[in-house]
Amino acid sequence: MKIAFQGIKGAYSELALYEHFGRNAESAGTDSFDELFEAVMEGRADFGIVPVENTIAGTVVENYDLLLSNDIFVVAEVFMKIRHTLLAKKGASLGDIRQAHSHPHALGQCKEFLKKHGIAPMPVYDTAGAAEIVSRESRNDRAAIASELCAEIYGMDILGRDIQTNKTNTTRFFVIVKKENLTDDTVYEKTTIAFKTRHYPGALVDCLKIFQKHDLNLTKLESRPIPENPWEYVFYADFEGGIDSEIVRQTLKELENHALFLNILGSYPRALLGFRF
Amino acid sequence: MKIAFQGIKGAYSELALYEHFGRNAESAGTDSFDELFEAVMEGRADFGIVPVENTIAGTVVENYDLLLSNDIFVVAEVFMKIRHTLLAKKGASLGDIRQAHSHPHALGQCKEFLKKHGIAPMPVYDTAGAAEIVSRESRNDRAAIASELCAEIYGMDILGRDIQTNKTNTTRFFVIVKKENLTDDTVYEKTTIAFKTRHYPGALVDCLKIFQKHDLNLTKLESRPIPENPWEYVFYADFEGGIDSEIVRQTLKELENHALFLNILGSYPRALLGFRF
Repeated sequence: MKIAFQGIKGAYSELALYEHFGRNAESAGTDSFDELFEAVMEGRADFGIVPVENTIAGTVVENYDLLLSNDIFVVAEVFMKIRHTLLAKKGASLGDIRQAHSHPHALGQCKEFLKKHGIAPMPVYDTAGAAEIVSRESRNDRAAIASELCAEIYGMDILGRDIQTNKTNTTRFFVIVKKENLTDDTVYEKTTIAFKTRHYPGALVDCLKIFQKHDLNLTKLESRPIPENPWEYVFYADFEGGIDSEIVRQTLKELENHALFLNILGSYPRALLGFRF
Repeated sequence: MKIAFQGIKGAYSELALYEHFGRNAESAGTDSFDELFEAVMEGRADFGIVPVENTIAGTVVENYDLLLSNDIFVVAEVFMKIRHTLLAKKGASLGDIRQAHSHPHALGQCKEFLKKHGIAPMPVYDTAGAAEIVSRESRNDRAAIASELCAEIYGMDILGRDIQTNKTNTTRFFVIVKKENLTDDTVYEKTTIAFKTRHYPGALVDCLKIFQKHDLNLTKLESRPIPENPWEYVFYADFEGGIDSEIVRQTLKELENHALFLNILGSYPRALLGFRF
Protein backbone atom coordinates (compact mmCIF):
# COMPACT_ATOMS: atom_id res chain seq x y z
CA MET A 1 0.00 0.00 0.00
CA LYS A 2 1.47 3.29 -1.12
CA ILE A 3 0.52 6.61 0.49
CA ALA A 4 1.39 10.02 -0.99
CA PHE A 5 2.34 13.02 1.15
CA GLN A 6 3.59 16.49 0.15
CA GLY A 7 7.22 17.17 0.98
CA ILE A 8 10.47 15.29 1.38
CA LYS A 9 11.26 12.42 3.81
CA GLY A 10 10.78 13.53 7.42
CA ALA A 11 8.10 16.17 6.71
CA TYR A 12 5.39 16.55 9.34
CA SER A 13 2.94 15.16 6.76
CA GLU A 14 4.97 11.94 6.61
CA LEU A 15 4.85 11.72 10.41
CA ALA A 16 1.04 12.04 10.28
CA LEU A 17 1.04 9.33 7.61
CA TYR A 18 2.91 6.90 9.89
CA GLU A 19 0.70 7.86 12.83
CA HIS A 20 -2.35 6.84 10.82
CA PHE A 21 -1.11 3.95 8.66
CA GLY A 22 1.66 2.58 10.91
CA ARG A 23 5.39 2.47 10.32
CA ASN A 24 5.22 -0.28 7.68
CA ALA A 25 3.30 1.90 5.23
CA GLU A 26 5.12 2.83 2.03
CA SER A 27 5.28 6.62 1.80
CA ALA A 28 5.87 8.65 -1.37
CA GLY A 29 6.67 12.37 -1.28
CA THR A 30 5.37 14.79 -3.93
CA ASP A 31 6.53 18.32 -4.79
CA SER A 32 3.10 19.92 -4.51
CA PHE A 33 -0.49 19.26 -3.42
CA ASP A 34 -1.52 19.28 -7.09
CA GLU A 35 0.86 16.40 -7.78
CA LEU A 36 -0.35 14.55 -4.70
CA PHE A 37 -3.98 14.63 -5.90
CA GLU A 38 -2.80 13.62 -9.38
CA ALA A 39 -0.89 10.62 -7.96
CA VAL A 40 -4.04 9.45 -6.15
CA MET A 41 -6.29 10.05 -9.19
CA GLU A 42 -3.91 8.20 -11.54
CA GLY A 43 -3.43 5.24 -9.19
CA ARG A 44 0.25 5.86 -8.46
CA ALA A 45 -0.73 6.06 -4.79
CA ASP A 46 -3.54 4.18 -3.01
CA PHE A 47 -4.13 6.97 -0.52
CA GLY A 48 -2.96 10.51 0.08
CA ILE A 49 -2.65 12.51 3.29
CA VAL A 50 -2.99 16.31 3.20
CA PRO A 51 -3.03 19.04 5.87
CA VAL A 52 -6.35 20.92 5.89
CA GLU A 53 -6.15 23.08 9.00
CA ASN A 54 -3.63 24.24 11.58
CA THR A 55 -4.47 25.93 14.87
CA ILE A 56 -2.03 28.78 14.18
CA ALA A 57 -2.11 29.16 10.39
CA GLY A 58 -5.78 28.36 9.77
CA THR A 59 -7.31 26.48 6.84
CA VAL A 60 -5.26 25.17 3.90
CA VAL A 61 -7.94 26.20 1.43
CA GLU A 62 -5.86 24.94 -1.50
CA ASN A 63 -6.57 21.36 -0.38
CA TYR A 64 -10.30 21.97 0.06
CA ASP A 65 -10.36 23.41 -3.46
CA LEU A 66 -8.50 20.33 -4.78
CA LEU A 67 -11.00 18.05 -3.01
CA LEU A 68 -13.82 19.90 -4.74
CA SER A 69 -12.26 19.68 -8.20
CA ASN A 70 -11.25 15.98 -8.11
CA ASP A 71 -13.24 12.72 -7.76
CA ILE A 72 -11.67 12.17 -4.36
CA PHE A 73 -13.24 11.15 -1.04
CA VAL A 74 -12.04 11.83 2.49
CA VAL A 75 -12.00 8.57 4.50
CA ALA A 76 -10.23 9.71 7.67
CA GLU A 77 -9.15 12.75 9.66
CA VAL A 78 -5.92 12.79 11.69
CA PHE A 79 -5.00 15.38 14.35
CA MET A 80 -1.31 15.74 15.12
CA LYS A 81 0.45 18.05 17.56
CA ILE A 82 3.40 19.82 15.94
CA ARG A 83 6.45 19.16 18.11
CA HIS A 84 9.60 20.83 16.84
CA THR A 85 12.99 19.22 17.41
CA LEU A 86 16.47 20.76 17.19
CA LEU A 87 18.66 18.45 15.10
CA ALA A 88 22.39 18.61 14.36
CA LYS A 89 25.28 16.52 13.04
CA LYS A 90 26.12 13.56 15.26
CA GLY A 91 28.47 14.66 18.04
CA ALA A 92 27.44 18.34 18.07
CA SER A 93 26.32 19.84 21.36
CA LEU A 94 23.76 22.55 22.05
CA GLY A 95 26.48 24.99 23.12
CA ASP A 96 28.12 24.76 19.66
CA ILE A 97 25.03 25.76 17.69
CA ARG A 98 25.02 29.30 16.25
CA GLN A 99 22.47 28.98 13.41
CA ALA A 100 19.22 27.06 13.02
CA HIS A 101 17.74 26.44 9.57
CA SER A 102 14.02 25.84 9.10
CA HIS A 103 10.78 27.02 7.53
CA PRO A 104 9.97 30.59 8.64
CA HIS A 105 6.86 29.42 10.54
CA ALA A 106 8.84 26.86 12.56
CA LEU A 107 11.54 29.46 13.31
CA GLY A 108 8.86 31.85 14.56
CA GLN A 109 7.30 29.18 16.76
CA CYS A 110 10.70 28.45 18.39
CA LYS A 111 11.80 32.10 18.68
CA GLU A 112 12.07 32.00 22.51
CA PHE A 113 14.18 28.83 22.52
CA LEU A 114 16.52 30.25 19.86
CA LYS A 115 16.89 33.56 21.69
CA LYS A 116 17.64 31.83 24.98
CA HIS A 117 20.43 29.81 23.38
CA GLY A 118 21.82 32.60 21.19
CA ILE A 119 20.98 30.80 17.94
CA ALA A 120 20.30 32.83 14.78
CA PRO A 121 17.22 31.81 12.71
CA MET A 122 17.96 30.99 9.03
CA PRO A 123 14.84 30.66 6.89
CA VAL A 124 14.75 27.93 4.22
CA TYR A 125 11.98 26.36 2.15
CA ASP A 126 10.86 23.52 4.46
CA THR A 127 11.66 21.84 7.79
CA ALA A 128 12.72 18.42 6.49
CA GLY A 129 14.77 20.08 3.75
CA ALA A 130 16.63 22.03 6.44
CA ALA A 131 17.49 18.77 8.23
CA GLU A 132 18.67 17.19 4.99
CA ILE A 133 20.94 20.19 4.21
CA VAL A 134 22.45 20.36 7.71
CA SER A 135 23.07 16.58 7.70
CA ARG A 136 25.13 16.88 4.50
CA GLU A 137 27.36 19.70 5.81
CA SER A 138 30.44 19.16 7.94
CA ARG A 139 29.76 21.99 10.37
CA ASN A 140 28.96 21.56 14.06
CA ASP A 141 27.55 25.07 14.59
CA ARG A 142 24.47 24.59 12.42
CA ALA A 143 21.23 22.90 13.36
CA ALA A 144 17.83 22.35 11.80
CA ILE A 145 14.37 22.64 13.32
CA ALA A 146 12.26 19.78 12.03
CA SER A 147 10.32 16.68 13.10
CA GLU A 148 11.88 14.03 15.33
CA LEU A 149 11.50 11.64 12.39
CA CYS A 150 14.32 13.52 10.61
CA ALA A 151 16.85 12.38 13.25
CA GLU A 152 16.34 8.79 12.16
CA ILE A 153 16.08 9.51 8.42
CA TYR A 154 19.12 11.80 8.14
CA GLY A 155 21.19 10.21 10.96
CA MET A 156 21.27 13.28 13.22
CA ASP A 157 21.43 13.95 16.95
CA ILE A 158 18.49 15.51 18.81
CA LEU A 159 19.66 18.54 20.84
CA GLY A 160 16.22 19.75 21.93
CA ARG A 161 12.67 18.37 21.97
CA ASP A 162 9.35 20.25 22.05
CA ILE A 163 11.20 23.53 21.61
CA GLN A 164 8.15 25.45 20.33
CA THR A 165 6.55 28.07 22.58
CA ASN A 166 2.95 27.13 21.74
CA LYS A 167 2.47 23.60 23.04
CA THR A 168 -0.99 23.17 21.53
CA ASN A 169 -0.12 23.82 17.87
CA THR A 170 -2.05 21.10 16.05
CA THR A 171 -2.53 20.22 12.39
CA ARG A 172 -5.55 18.39 11.05
CA PHE A 173 -4.98 16.10 8.07
CA PHE A 174 -7.38 14.36 5.69
CA VAL A 175 -6.71 10.89 4.32
CA ILE A 176 -8.00 10.80 0.76
CA VAL A 177 -8.79 8.06 -1.73
CA LYS A 178 -10.00 7.98 -5.33
CA LYS A 179 -13.81 7.78 -5.21
CA GLU A 180 -14.00 4.61 -7.28
CA ASN A 181 -11.65 2.85 -4.83
CA LEU A 182 -13.91 3.43 -1.80
CA THR A 183 -14.41 0.21 0.16
CA ASP A 184 -17.49 -0.94 2.10
CA ASP A 185 -15.81 -0.98 5.50
CA THR A 186 -15.51 2.79 5.95
CA VAL A 187 -16.87 4.09 9.26
CA TYR A 188 -18.96 7.24 8.84
CA GLU A 189 -19.18 9.59 11.84
CA LYS A 190 -18.35 13.05 10.48
CA THR A 191 -19.00 14.49 7.03
CA THR A 192 -17.34 17.24 5.00
CA ILE A 193 -19.31 19.03 2.30
CA ALA A 194 -19.03 21.93 -0.12
CA PHE A 195 -22.11 23.89 -1.10
CA LYS A 196 -23.01 27.04 -2.94
CA THR A 197 -25.79 29.31 -1.72
CA ARG A 198 -28.41 31.09 -3.82
CA HIS A 199 -28.09 34.83 -4.45
CA TYR A 200 -30.15 36.56 -1.79
CA PRO A 201 -29.36 38.09 1.60
CA GLY A 202 -29.57 35.46 4.30
CA ALA A 203 -29.17 32.52 1.90
CA LEU A 204 -26.45 31.02 4.08
CA VAL A 205 -28.56 31.26 7.23
CA ASP A 206 -31.40 29.44 5.46
CA CYS A 207 -28.97 26.62 4.56
CA LEU A 208 -27.62 26.38 8.10
CA LYS A 209 -31.15 26.30 9.59
CA ILE A 210 -31.54 22.89 7.93
CA PHE A 211 -28.69 21.56 10.08
CA GLN A 212 -30.16 23.16 13.20
CA LYS A 213 -33.59 21.66 12.49
CA HIS A 214 -32.06 18.16 12.37
CA ASP A 215 -29.83 18.74 15.43
CA LEU A 216 -26.61 18.23 13.49
CA ASN A 217 -23.56 20.01 14.93
CA LEU A 218 -21.41 21.96 12.53
CA THR A 219 -17.73 21.62 13.42
CA LYS A 220 -16.26 23.87 10.74
CA LEU A 221 -17.55 26.52 8.37
CA GLU A 222 -15.61 28.58 5.91
CA SER A 223 -16.71 30.95 3.16
CA ARG A 224 -14.67 30.84 -0.02
CA PRO A 225 -15.17 33.54 -2.64
CA ILE A 226 -15.10 32.46 -6.28
CA PRO A 227 -12.67 34.94 -7.87
CA GLU A 228 -14.12 34.54 -11.36
CA ASN A 229 -17.63 35.25 -10.06
CA PRO A 230 -17.84 38.00 -7.47
CA TRP A 231 -21.03 37.71 -5.36
CA GLU A 232 -20.73 33.90 -5.50
CA TYR A 233 -19.46 31.79 -2.62
CA VAL A 234 -18.66 28.18 -1.94
CA PHE A 235 -18.90 27.10 1.70
CA TYR A 236 -16.87 24.32 3.17
CA ALA A 237 -18.52 22.74 6.20
CA ASP A 238 -17.90 19.77 8.50
CA PHE A 239 -20.62 18.34 10.70
CA GLU A 240 -21.13 15.44 13.09
CA GLY A 241 -22.96 12.53 11.47
CA GLY A 242 -22.09 9.96 8.82
CA ILE A 243 -23.52 9.72 5.33
CA ASP A 244 -25.10 6.35 6.19
CA SER A 245 -27.40 7.94 8.81
CA GLU A 246 -31.02 8.61 7.85
CA ILE A 247 -30.96 12.10 9.46
CA VAL A 248 -27.87 13.09 7.48
CA ARG A 249 -29.40 11.80 4.25
CA GLN A 250 -32.56 13.82 4.88
CA THR A 251 -30.53 16.95 5.80
CA LEU A 252 -28.39 16.74 2.68
CA LYS A 253 -31.48 16.19 0.52
CA GLU A 254 -33.08 19.37 1.89
CA LEU A 255 -29.80 21.26 1.52
CA GLU A 256 -29.45 20.08 -2.08
CA ASN A 257 -32.93 21.41 -2.86
CA HIS A 258 -32.07 24.74 -1.31
CA ALA A 259 -28.46 25.32 -2.43
CA LEU A 260 -27.14 25.91 -5.96
CA PHE A 261 -24.98 22.84 -5.61
CA LEU A 262 -23.90 20.35 -2.97
CA ASN A 263 -20.85 18.12 -3.08
CA ILE A 264 -20.05 15.50 -0.42
CA LEU A 265 -16.27 15.61 -0.06
CA GLY A 266 -15.96 12.83 2.50
CA SER A 267 -17.36 10.95 5.50
CA TYR A 268 -15.10 9.39 8.08
CA PRO A 269 -14.62 8.31 11.72
CA ARG A 270 -14.34 11.07 14.33
CA ALA A 271 -10.73 11.48 15.45
CA LEU A 272 -9.57 12.76 18.82
CA LEU A 273 -9.00 16.50 19.36
CA GLY A 274 -12.05 17.53 17.35
CA PHE A 275 -13.86 20.82 17.86
CA ARG A 276 -17.51 21.71 17.34
CA PHE A 277 -19.83 24.69 17.49
CA MET B 1 2.72 59.95 8.10
CA LYS B 2 4.42 56.61 8.54
CA ILE B 3 2.77 53.34 7.52
CA ALA B 4 4.05 49.89 8.51
CA PHE B 5 3.95 46.88 6.18
CA GLN B 6 5.39 43.39 6.63
CA GLY B 7 8.35 42.57 4.41
CA ILE B 8 11.20 44.34 2.67
CA LYS B 9 11.04 47.19 0.12
CA GLY B 10 9.09 46.14 -2.96
CA ALA B 11 6.85 43.57 -1.20
CA TYR B 12 3.29 43.31 -2.49
CA SER B 13 2.16 44.76 0.85
CA GLU B 14 4.17 47.91 0.14
CA LEU B 15 2.53 48.15 -3.28
CA ALA B 16 -0.90 47.97 -1.61
CA LEU B 17 0.27 50.66 0.81
CA TYR B 18 1.14 53.04 -2.05
CA GLU B 19 -2.12 52.16 -3.83
CA HIS B 20 -4.06 53.28 -0.76
CA PHE B 21 -1.95 56.12 0.68
CA GLY B 22 -0.31 57.43 -2.51
CA ARG B 23 3.35 57.39 -3.49
CA ASN B 24 4.35 60.13 -1.04
CA ALA B 25 3.53 58.00 2.01
CA GLU B 26 6.48 56.97 4.17
CA SER B 27 6.59 53.18 4.35
CA ALA B 28 8.34 51.11 7.03
CA GLY B 29 8.91 47.36 6.63
CA THR B 30 8.75 44.99 9.61
CA ASP B 31 10.01 41.41 9.95
CA SER B 32 6.74 39.93 11.14
CA PHE B 33 3.04 40.72 11.59
CA ASP B 34 3.59 40.71 15.37
CA GLU B 35 6.15 43.50 15.00
CA LEU B 36 3.84 45.42 12.67
CA PHE B 37 1.02 45.45 15.23
CA GLU B 38 3.54 46.39 17.92
CA ALA B 39 4.80 49.32 15.82
CA VAL B 40 1.22 50.63 15.44
CA MET B 41 0.38 50.08 19.12
CA GLU B 42 3.56 51.82 20.29
CA GLY B 43 3.14 54.77 17.96
CA ARG B 44 6.20 54.07 15.78
CA ALA B 45 3.78 53.91 12.83
CA ASP B 46 0.56 55.89 12.32
CA PHE B 47 -1.09 53.13 10.32
CA GLY B 48 -0.36 49.58 9.33
CA ILE B 49 -1.44 47.56 6.29
CA VAL B 50 -1.85 43.78 6.53
CA PRO B 51 -3.05 41.08 4.13
CA VAL B 52 -6.14 39.32 5.48
CA GLU B 53 -7.30 37.17 2.57
CA ASN B 54 -6.08 35.94 -0.80
CA THR B 55 -8.26 34.32 -3.44
CA ILE B 56 -5.84 31.38 -3.81
CA ALA B 57 -4.38 30.96 -0.32
CA GLY B 58 -7.44 31.88 1.75
CA THR B 59 -7.57 33.80 5.03
CA VAL B 60 -4.48 35.02 6.87
CA VAL B 61 -5.95 34.05 10.24
CA GLU B 62 -2.82 35.24 12.07
CA ASN B 63 -3.81 38.83 11.30
CA TYR B 64 -7.43 38.36 12.42
CA ASP B 65 -6.09 36.90 15.68
CA LEU B 66 -3.77 39.91 16.10
CA LEU B 67 -6.70 42.27 15.47
CA LEU B 68 -8.63 40.51 18.23
CA SER B 69 -5.79 40.66 20.76
CA ASN B 70 -4.79 44.33 20.23
CA ASP B 71 -6.65 47.64 20.69
CA ILE B 72 -6.58 48.18 16.95
CA PHE B 73 -9.33 49.25 14.55
CA VAL B 74 -9.69 48.57 10.82
CA VAL B 75 -10.36 51.82 8.96
CA ALA B 76 -10.07 50.65 5.34
CA GLU B 77 -9.99 47.60 3.12
CA VAL B 78 -7.88 47.45 -0.05
CA PHE B 79 -8.19 44.87 -2.83
CA MET B 80 -5.13 44.37 -5.03
CA LYS B 81 -4.60 42.04 -7.98
CA ILE B 82 -1.33 40.16 -7.68
CA ARG B 83 0.58 40.74 -10.93
CA HIS B 84 3.91 38.94 -11.06
CA THR B 85 6.82 40.45 -12.97
CA LEU B 86 10.03 38.79 -14.20
CA LEU B 87 12.96 41.01 -13.20
CA ALA B 88 16.65 40.72 -14.05
CA LYS B 89 19.89 42.72 -14.04
CA LYS B 90 19.85 45.66 -16.41
CA GLY B 91 20.79 44.51 -19.92
CA ALA B 92 19.75 40.86 -19.50
CA SER B 93 17.33 39.43 -22.07
CA LEU B 94 14.62 36.81 -21.61
CA GLY B 95 16.57 34.29 -23.70
CA ASP B 96 19.50 34.42 -21.23
CA ILE B 97 17.46 33.53 -18.14
CA ARG B 98 17.92 29.96 -16.82
CA GLN B 99 16.76 30.34 -13.19
CA ALA B 100 14.03 32.35 -11.50
CA HIS B 101 14.12 32.99 -7.73
CA SER B 102 10.95 33.72 -5.79
CA HIS B 103 8.59 32.63 -3.02
CA PRO B 104 7.28 29.09 -3.70
CA HIS B 105 3.70 30.39 -4.15
CA ALA B 106 4.77 32.89 -6.82
CA LEU B 107 6.84 30.23 -8.61
CA GLY B 108 3.80 27.94 -8.62
CA GLN B 109 1.58 30.69 -10.02
CA CYS B 110 4.04 31.31 -12.89
CA LYS B 111 4.78 27.63 -13.61
CA GLU B 112 3.47 27.77 -17.19
CA PHE B 113 5.49 30.86 -18.08
CA LEU B 114 8.67 29.34 -16.60
CA LYS B 115 8.14 26.03 -18.42
CA LYS B 116 7.53 27.77 -21.75
CA HIS B 117 10.81 29.69 -21.43
CA GLY B 118 12.87 26.80 -20.00
CA ILE B 119 13.49 28.61 -16.70
CA ALA B 120 14.11 26.56 -13.53
CA PRO B 121 12.19 27.67 -10.38
CA MET B 122 14.40 28.42 -7.32
CA PRO B 123 12.44 28.85 -4.08
CA VAL B 124 13.52 31.56 -1.62
CA TYR B 125 11.89 33.20 1.40
CA ASP B 126 10.03 36.08 -0.26
CA THR B 127 9.47 37.78 -3.61
CA ALA B 128 11.08 41.15 -2.89
CA GLY B 129 14.02 39.40 -1.23
CA ALA B 130 14.54 37.42 -4.44
CA ALA B 131 14.70 40.67 -6.43
CA GLU B 132 17.16 42.17 -3.97
CA ILE B 133 19.44 39.09 -4.18
CA VAL B 134 19.38 38.90 -7.99
CA SER B 135 20.06 42.65 -8.27
CA ARG B 136 23.25 42.25 -6.20
CA GLU B 137 24.65 39.37 -8.30
CA SER B 138 26.61 39.84 -11.49
CA ARG B 139 24.90 37.06 -13.43
CA ASN B 140 22.67 37.56 -16.46
CA ASP B 141 21.06 34.09 -16.36
CA ARG B 142 19.16 34.67 -13.11
CA ALA B 143 15.87 36.46 -12.63
CA ALA B 144 13.42 37.10 -9.81
CA ILE B 145 9.64 36.95 -9.78
CA ALA B 146 8.33 39.87 -7.75
CA SER B 147 6.24 43.03 -7.96
CA GLU B 148 6.83 45.65 -10.64
CA LEU B 149 7.77 48.03 -7.81
CA CYS B 150 11.01 46.05 -7.34
CA ALA B 151 12.28 47.12 -10.80
CA GLU B 152 12.37 50.71 -9.61
CA ILE B 153 13.64 49.96 -6.08
CA TYR B 154 16.43 47.58 -7.06
CA GLY B 155 17.24 49.10 -10.47
CA MET B 156 16.28 46.08 -12.56
CA ASP B 157 14.87 45.42 -16.04
CA ILE B 158 11.38 43.99 -16.52
CA LEU B 159 11.52 40.95 -18.84
CA GLY B 160 7.90 39.87 -18.42
CA ARG B 161 4.69 41.36 -17.01
CA ASP B 162 1.58 39.59 -15.71
CA ILE B 163 3.33 36.24 -16.07
CA GLN B 164 1.02 34.40 -13.61
CA THR B 165 -1.45 31.87 -15.01
CA ASN B 166 -4.35 32.92 -12.78
CA LYS B 167 -5.20 36.47 -13.80
CA THR B 168 -7.72 37.01 -10.98
CA ASN B 169 -5.46 36.30 -7.98
CA THR B 170 -6.38 39.06 -5.55
CA THR B 171 -5.30 39.92 -2.02
CA ARG B 172 -7.44 41.85 0.42
CA PHE B 173 -5.63 44.10 2.90
CA PHE B 174 -6.80 45.88 6.04
CA VAL B 175 -5.54 49.34 6.99
CA ILE B 176 -5.26 49.45 10.77
CA VAL B 177 -4.89 52.20 13.34
CA LYS B 178 -4.53 52.30 17.12
CA LYS B 179 -8.06 52.62 18.55
CA GLU B 180 -7.29 55.78 20.49
CA ASN B 181 -6.09 57.48 17.29
CA LEU B 182 -9.38 56.99 15.44
CA THR B 183 -10.57 60.21 13.82
CA ASP B 184 -14.12 61.45 13.30
CA ASP B 185 -13.95 61.50 9.52
CA THR B 186 -13.98 57.72 9.01
CA VAL B 187 -16.61 56.47 6.55
CA TYR B 188 -18.45 53.39 7.81
CA GLU B 189 -19.94 51.06 5.17
CA LYS B 190 -18.73 47.59 6.11
CA THR B 191 -17.97 46.15 9.54
CA THR B 192 -15.71 43.33 10.73
CA ILE B 193 -16.47 41.59 14.01
CA ALA B 194 -15.31 38.66 16.12
CA PHE B 195 -17.81 36.80 18.29
CA LYS B 196 -17.96 33.66 20.33
CA THR B 197 -21.06 31.49 20.36
CA ARG B 198 -22.66 29.77 23.36
CA HIS B 199 -22.23 26.02 23.81
CA TYR B 200 -25.24 24.36 22.23
CA PRO B 201 -25.94 22.85 18.81
CA GLY B 202 -27.16 25.51 16.44
CA ALA B 203 -25.72 28.41 18.46
CA LEU B 204 -24.07 29.83 15.34
CA VAL B 205 -27.29 29.68 13.32
CA ASP B 206 -29.11 31.58 16.07
CA CYS B 207 -26.46 34.30 15.90
CA LEU B 208 -26.65 34.53 12.11
CA LYS B 209 -30.46 34.73 12.18
CA ILE B 210 -30.04 38.15 13.85
CA PHE B 211 -28.28 39.41 10.70
CA GLN B 212 -30.91 37.86 8.47
CA LYS B 213 -33.73 39.45 10.49
CA HIS B 214 -32.18 42.90 9.96
CA ASP B 215 -31.40 42.27 6.27
CA LEU B 216 -27.65 42.68 6.74
CA ASN B 217 -25.51 40.82 4.18
CA LEU B 218 -22.62 38.79 5.53
CA THR B 219 -19.62 39.02 3.20
CA LYS B 220 -17.24 36.71 5.08
CA LEU B 221 -17.55 34.09 7.77
CA GLU B 222 -14.83 31.96 9.26
CA SER B 223 -14.79 29.61 12.22
CA ARG B 224 -11.64 29.63 14.31
CA PRO B 225 -11.13 26.92 16.91
CA ILE B 226 -9.54 27.97 20.22
CA PRO B 227 -6.76 25.41 20.67
CA GLU B 228 -6.65 25.78 24.45
CA ASN B 229 -10.41 25.22 24.71
CA PRO B 230 -11.76 22.52 22.43
CA TRP B 231 -15.52 22.94 21.80
CA GLU B 232 -15.06 26.71 21.79
CA TYR B 233 -14.99 28.82 18.65
CA VAL B 234 -14.43 32.38 17.67
CA PHE B 235 -16.10 33.50 14.45
CA TYR B 236 -14.74 36.25 12.25
CA ALA B 237 -17.43 37.88 10.14
CA ASP B 238 -17.72 40.83 7.78
CA PHE B 239 -21.05 42.38 6.86
CA GLU B 240 -22.41 45.30 4.86
CA GLY B 241 -23.32 48.24 7.06
CA GLY B 242 -21.38 50.76 9.11
CA ILE B 243 -21.27 51.03 12.90
CA ASP B 244 -22.95 54.45 12.71
CA SER B 245 -26.16 52.95 11.25
CA GLU B 246 -29.10 52.37 13.61
CA ILE B 247 -29.80 48.90 12.14
CA VAL B 248 -26.21 47.81 12.70
CA ARG B 249 -26.27 49.12 16.26
CA GLN B 250 -29.47 47.19 16.99
CA THR B 251 -28.09 44.02 15.34
CA LEU B 252 -24.86 44.14 17.33
CA LYS B 253 -26.79 44.78 20.55
CA GLU B 254 -28.88 41.66 19.96
CA LEU B 255 -25.80 39.68 18.99
CA GLU B 256 -23.99 40.80 22.12
CA ASN B 257 -26.89 39.59 24.25
CA HIS B 258 -26.83 36.23 22.51
CA ALA B 259 -23.10 35.55 22.09
CA LEU B 260 -20.49 34.90 24.77
CA PHE B 261 -18.55 37.89 23.56
CA LEU B 262 -18.57 40.37 20.70
CA ASN B 263 -15.67 42.51 19.54
CA ILE B 264 -15.94 45.12 16.76
CA LEU B 265 -12.63 44.89 14.89
CA GLY B 266 -13.31 47.67 12.43
CA SER B 267 -15.74 49.62 10.25
CA TYR B 268 -14.68 51.12 6.95
CA PRO B 269 -15.69 52.21 3.42
CA ARG B 270 -16.58 49.45 0.95
CA ALA B 271 -13.74 48.95 -1.54
CA LEU B 272 -14.08 47.67 -5.09
CA LEU B 273 -13.86 43.94 -5.81
CA GLY B 274 -15.87 42.97 -2.73
CA PHE B 275 -17.85 39.76 -2.43
CA ARG B 276 -20.98 39.00 -0.44
CA PHE B 277 -23.29 36.10 0.41
